Amino acid sequence: MVSGWRKLGVIAGGGELPVVLAEHLAATRRPYFIARISPNSDVALDAHPGATHGLGQIGARMDAMREAGCDAVVLLGHVQRPDLTTLQLDDVGLAMLPTILAAMPEGDDALLRALLNEHEKAGFRVVGADQVMRDLLATAGAWGAVAPNDRHKRDIAKASKVAAASGAFDIGQGVIVCDGLVLAVEAQEGTDAMLRRAAELPTTIRGTPQARRGVLVKRPKPIQERRIDLPTIGVRTVEGAAAAGLAGIAVEAQGALAVRRDEIIAAANRAGLFVYGFTAEEVGDA
Amino acid sequence: MVSGWRKLGVIAGGGELPVVLAEHLAATRRPYFIARISPNSDVALDAHPGATHGLGQIGARMDAMREAGCDAVVLLGHVQRPDLTTLQLDDVGLAMLPTILAAMPEGDDALLRALLNEHEKAGFRVVGADQVMRDLLATAGAWGAVAPNDRHKRDIAKASKVAAASGAFDIGQGVIVCDGLVLAVEAQEGTDAMLRRAAELPTTIRGTPQARRGVLVKRPKPIQERRIDLPTIGVRTVEGAAAAGLAGIAVEAQGALAVRRDEIIAAANRAGLFVYGFTAEEVGDA
Repeated sequence: MVSGWRKLGVIAGGGELPVVLAEHLAATRRPYFIARISPNSDVALDAHPGATHGLGQIGARMDAMREAGCDAVVLLGHVQRPDLTTLQLDDVGLAMLPTILAAMPEGDDALLRALLNEHEKAGFRVVGADQVMRDLLATAGAWGAVAPNDRHKRDIAKASKVAAASGAFDIGQGVIVCDGLVLAVEAQEGTDAMLRRAAELPTTIRGTPQARRGVLVKRPKPIQERRIDLPTIGVRTVEGAAAAGLAGIAVEAQGALAVRRDEIIAAANRAGLFVYGFTAEEVGDA
Repeated sequence: MVSGWRKLGVIAGGGELPVVLAEHLAATRRPYFIARISPNSDVALDAHPGATHGLGQIGARMDAMREAGCDAVVLLGHVQRPDLTTLQLDDVGLAMLPTILAAMPEGDDALLRALLNEHEKAGFRVVGADQVMRDLLATAGAWGAVAPNDRHKRDIAKASKVAAASGAFDIGQGVIVCDGLVLAVEAQEGTDAMLRRAAELPTTIRGTPQARRGVLVKRPKPIQERRIDLPTIGVRTVEGAAAAGLAGIAVEAQGALAVRRDEIIAAANRAGLFVYGFTAEEVGDA
């Protein structure tokens, strides 16, 4: 897998994930090129070989990666949903416009799939972040010192079912369930904002740092293109879950990315939370 | 329908709906008794004939209604989900405890159904707020000066489908969709909080008061006991939708309650929003 490309173009949106991947590529001396998306990508990426383009400069970005010798690309990190009036599409971007417009109302995944298809048509092999760095991928079982009990596992199973139903509409990837009750469903606000509002619910229906209960579950949408936009958790997710009084976080094993796994585990152990990778069979999927 | 009871016990939680109903009963000189739930029910209800009990005093409340001559009850208004440690259940409440415990993890509707069943077993006829006051029930079509266009109707149809899927899990009743994209799904935070967070999303994916787009849809859960807990909209819903830049609000005709309909229409007209009652056929339900 990892040897399937000569030089990797990393199309880098915001957040820590592209930084972690770039550091991994540098440390393992693999040829790479960072295609930074302005203004989203982290300033830490400026120290790596690459170039910077606006989101809409799709053709210029492909040219830069091709000239640098990239034969494969990985897309990762957050990008604000484009505003067509300020997107400043270049020629290749303009040619994609009908595809973009058709995909936009369908949800985030439809939009990313369209972008991915465009890169494949242009001759790039598209790989997933987990194919570049196996350690990113969520493993099965309890990651840290704490494991979910049977009550937590029932919450995990229910949240997984709701996330699958919600994901079927390309809505979101996160759901919070506490003792069987669905507290929150993620849509465009993102996981961190969902955790903040869970922390504001009455304590009669949620846990507290003193008496933790309830779980956050993130899992891929059924329609998800797994090479892009796999659900991601990081230290901030653990901190948000801790503040909301949750007992833990569960992700689908092989179906989520962990950004700085060691730090996630340390933060979870400190707060007394579990981080758990469940299998599809475990939550009753067919 | 309306003549099916001699005296009506109004079990009144928080919010304006019980006040509107009490005022209607007083104005139309129908015999009634307000069973105020402390501390939730509005102080405006203190002026009406009735008595006040804690949420857990289920037996005492039934006795008071029976002594007052009530043969039917209506349950309405908001009640915070009970904390069993402070609920102070009386004997009848304690006898219901296993039922309450079984219903709690299933969602709000399961809990209300259990309470309703208990009143029916005790010999009360349970009626819906709309059977007492027909004007509360959402009508079909545009209510005010503004009507949804075809683009809005597509958003209404999509939001209705998502609300039906979400409601099948007894999660919530509200969904916000803007140009096909699902912005927010309501769970335990309630409609007002959902509207506030929609107002915080980037304006690239939502409307603004200057360029309104997107709709809030509320519809009953498929499993909903329609005599209790029908989705409700009021002036505050219109104000929240206006602040979030939405183009309008849509509810299922005959499937939602409008608290102070005249004021809802006036507020919607002022802000330039539509309020619309859709039929099941219109949104593509079987």
